[in-house]
Amino acid sequence: MELWYFQSYIENYQMGLKVKETLFCGKTRFQEIAILDTFLYGKTLILDGIVQTTEKDEFMYHEMLVHPAMFVHPNPRKIFIIGGGDGGASREVLKHPVEEVHLVDIDEGVIELCRRYFPQLGNWEDPRLKVLVEDAARFIKESDQVFDVIIMDSTDPIPRGVAEPLFSKEFFQQVFEHLSPEGLFVSQIEPPFFEPERVRKLWENLDMFPIVKVYWGLVPTYPGGVWTYVVGSKSLDPQKPLRKPDFPTRYYSPEVHQAAFTLPVFFKQLLEGKES
Amino acid sequence: MELWYFQSYIENYQMGLKVKETLFCGKTRFQEIAILDTFLYGKTLILDGIVQTTEKDEFMYHEMLVHPAMFVHPNPRKIFIIGGGDGGASREVLKHPVEEVHLVDIDEGVIELCRRYFPQLGNWEDPRLKVLVEDAARFIKESDQVFDVIIMDSTDPIPRGVAEPLFSKEFFQQVFEHLSPEGLFVSQIEPPFFEPERVRKLWENLDMFPIVKVYWGLVPTYPGGVWTYVVGSKSLDPQKPLRKPDFPTRYYSPEVHQAAFTLPVFFKQLLEGKES
Repeated sequence: MELWYFQSYIENYQMGLKVKETLFCGKTRFQEIAILDTFLYGKTLILDGIVQTTEKDEFMYHEMLVHPAMFVHPNPRKIFIIGGGDGGASREVLKHPVEEVHLVDIDEGVIELCRRYFPQLGNWEDPRLKVLVEDAARFIKESDQVFDVIIMDSTDPIPRGVAEPLFSKEFFQQVFEHLSPEGLFVSQIEPPFFEPERVRKLWENLDMFPIVKVYWGLVPTYPGGVWTYVVGSKSLDPQKPLRKPDFPTRYYSPEVHQAAFTLPVFFKQLLEGKES
Repeated sequence: MELWYFQSYIENYQMGLKVKETLFCGKTRFQEIAILDTFLYGKTLILDGIVQTTEKDEFMYHEMLVHPAMFVHPNPRKIFIIGGGDGGASREVLKHPVEEVHLVDIDEGVIELCRRYFPQLGNWEDPRLKVLVEDAARFIKESDQVFDVIIMDSTDPIPRGVAEPLFSKEFFQQVFEHLSPEGLFVSQIEPPFFEPERVRKLWENLDMFPIVKVYWGLVPTYPGGVWTYVVGSKSLDPQKPLRKPDFPTRYYSPEVHQAAFTLPVFFKQLLEGKES
């Protein structure tokens, strides 16, 4: 027997992964969750039918989500991670000399299952990490804390999905107000091929930041094979790292950081509202 | 009824495209060929079951295959294209002030069908373009011509496939000997995730060139979503364009050119024979 998982996230397109074993399949309070062991990518986390992370290529996504903003900040002490229940983003943040990392994910089920099935993804025992199960939008509204870097590692802003409110202008305004004067905010956004309007809208929703830049990196498991990230910065140039890794990396380097901000012509035009 | 095309090029992985219409399905002397109209990518050329090019994203592949080598050469007059029967590579080459472009493809059937179904892909009427239906390996062995840029736009070096002999050291030696002193050779190679040994071997087979560099670019229709290119150069640095486009581009820019040579850490390590 052959077992295949097919993902239909993008209309008119399917990705199929041959499955060795179904490790978990069920529901949390908020989402359907499946953990499959796939031949090509190893253990694979699927939320509401969409691949979120895999053992084999998670490093590409997590390094590129976290390190550019972290290395641009000269002295990132207090970090806030929105979502990130699989642990990968906080694992990368904790490689920096930070003091406190607040991870706020709405879905306890995801955190528990990832700790069990993806132990290498997280660094859960680090005492600097504070995990809070709560709606990140409510948390930030009620918090009087100020952060140096805020990282959004949520699912995609699918209409009526769990993460949709996190991509609103109101939420980004809250994020802006909870950042220190040299603070940076980074979020994953989809690549521009499939949902250009969604990408452009998100870009526009960040206009309270004096500097907004987009960069990209490989993630073979995601549709289209690359993923896009957007940084809002209060004062520092997101393309210019002020520090360098003193730990091993598998994707990130200062050169990769700078090159990642160079976008293909059609993508730049899309952000500028010109169709090519 | 829903019609889907599924590609099984990578083991344990499938890509599915929903099909509007099958425009052609048959065999040439060398390959199975299908031309499908797909909802996501428009008209799609499939050889031996593998997507080669699509209306929607062919510009990404063809611009990045052609322009880096072409813009590095200060004065590219004579160009040789190996394969490229769909016409896209020669269309991009002909945007440069070249004198002669020799396109040598073994498969007349591909050329004929692409001229018919993808008329915008080629610039077949340009008098500088000489099309020859022949085995490129034989052509180069018997030729006494010297070229400024040689572009290999073949199918992949699948064992026992049409293109396998084109990826041998003997063939690259012939290519080297038919290049002018400032000459450059460029070829597509697969991305490094799926067949790292094949990529490394190709890289090593080019060691007659004093300068060999790898770069990459997006192609959403290809497995993994990015594609990789290798340049062998006799004297010029492939990362430094000496000229700039005086025609519109949709992917390439001098900045994209330079950034494309910055490889993620794991990929650099792979080429250097170190596993990360």
